[in-house]
Amino acid sequence: MHNNKPSLYTSFSPALIDLYDLSNAIVVIIDVLRATSTIATALHNGAKSVIPVDSVGRCIEIARQVDGISAGERDGKIAEGLSYGNSPFEYPAEFIGGKTLVLTTTNGTKLLHMALNRGALHIVTGSFPNLSAVCDYLLVENKPVILGCAAWKDRVNIEDMLFAGAVVNRVKDHFSINCDSSQVAETMYLSASADLFAFMKAKNASHYHRLNNYGLEKDIRYCLTADLAPVVPLYTNGQLVKG
Amino acid sequence: MHNNKPSLYTSFSPALIDLYDLSNAIVVIIDVLRATSTIATALHNGAKSVIPVDSVGRCIEIARQVDGISAGERDGKIAEGLSYGNSPFEYPAEFIGGKTLVLTTTNGTKLLHMALNRGALHIVTGSFPNLSAVCDYLLVENKPVILGCAAWKDRVNIEDMLFAGAVVNRVKDHFSINCDSSQVAETMYLSASADLFAFMKAKNASHYHRLNNYGLEKDIRYCLTADLAPVVPLYTNGQLVKG
Repeated sequence: MHNNKPSLYTSFSPALIDLYDLSNAIVVIIDVLRATSTIATALHNGAKSVIPVDSVGRCIEIARQVDGISAGERDGKIAEGLSYGNSPFEYPAEFIGGKTLVLTTTNGTKLLHMALNRGALHIVTGSFPNLSAVCDYLLVENKPVILGCAAWKDRVNIEDMLFAGAVVNRVKDHFSINCDSSQVAETMYLSASADLFAFMKAKNASHYHRLNNYGLEKDIRYCLTADLAPVVPLYTNGQLVKG
Repeated sequence: MHNNKPSLYTSFSPALIDLYDLSNAIVVIIDVLRATSTIATALHNGAKSVIPVDSVGRCIEIARQVDGISAGERDGKIAEGLSYGNSPFEYPAEFIGGKTLVLTTTNGTKLLHMALNRGALHIVTGSFPNLSAVCDYLLVENKPVILGCAAWKDRVNIEDMLFAGAVVNRVKDHFSINCDSSQVAETMYLSASADLFAFMKAKNASHYHRLNNYGLEKDIRYCLTADLAPVVPLYTNGQLVKG
């Protein structure tokens, strides 16, 4: 029976993703602070789609082509030439409903394109705001899963690992998990789950530190809260849409 | 004062080592099960030196040149053409004293050569049997440190992370640590430290599983025990010698 379960692996960095066979697998792109949290939020609030791009130049170009909202930050401020930032709070239903969001996200977009080029069966994005939705989706699909942490310039980060661990903790009985990274992620999540924000702060997580210095504690707290945006962003034809 | 402390980073895999600046840094090669544990043990027991090599062919060649002991395993058995295996128990003082051990170790040797090519200031090997010796060495040297996990074919493993975490836990007050991986490693170590063996078993760590299937529980327990071989193996002119 055990052997009939699909496999599940966790990759802590884009630099490790080539260790795993992505073909026939569902790849979950995880970029908790803040790209994939904002993507789930925008789609939950009625955005028609979210187009992830890897540079400001490309963001401006695509937003013009699709008549979309250009968004992205550099050093905690809206990037020059773009109209909005990376905060989920910028995308309430009354603003984003029916619109296309073109979002600049370096680490997440890089990993997404790697997954695409390596023949992933499906690509979805995951974050605490859509934790349960992603877990339910993985259980229904019943395919091999790769939890792909977007990390920070290939360096492992705590928050993406915590989300991967939350998923492992929820779905592990339904997958065959022979992967130390998944065990590590779950152990970290269980250490942190009583208060994810306090844990990030206590560990002086590099990204917590960076965003908190920009005055974004509210964003961090939101991005660590489960199920506020229960959608499955599914990558289809270059766009993320509600799956 | 804080800024005067040298930096410390942890790399969970050879595939991540290029994210760190190794020049002017001490790189600690960590391959807990079992290469670096066996290296410490052999040197503690009086081996003249240990020459780490990455293949059976090279092991045979070098052992012949230096009149050394050729050692290495494939799938839990002494590799064809070699004389001894990877177990620390094969190298008591009465056997290894005064001899040169040529040890085949794929993951550890790969990382060691990467550190060498990237201009590391010093390269030493670390494992629980020489935990305190390595920590004392790092404190005395007071240079930037990279804790380099050898991992398993680039995949993150729990035991190397646990050792990195043990080092972080011991030396952290004396280093500037802005590195999520180091925080993760320490958190994992603190979760596991009451009984490292039980933790590895409970997490069904992939390498625990592999070695235990070969009947090597005794080896695993030894390799998770602190300070049984208190030496600092220092890489000099192609060989590891007592530092």
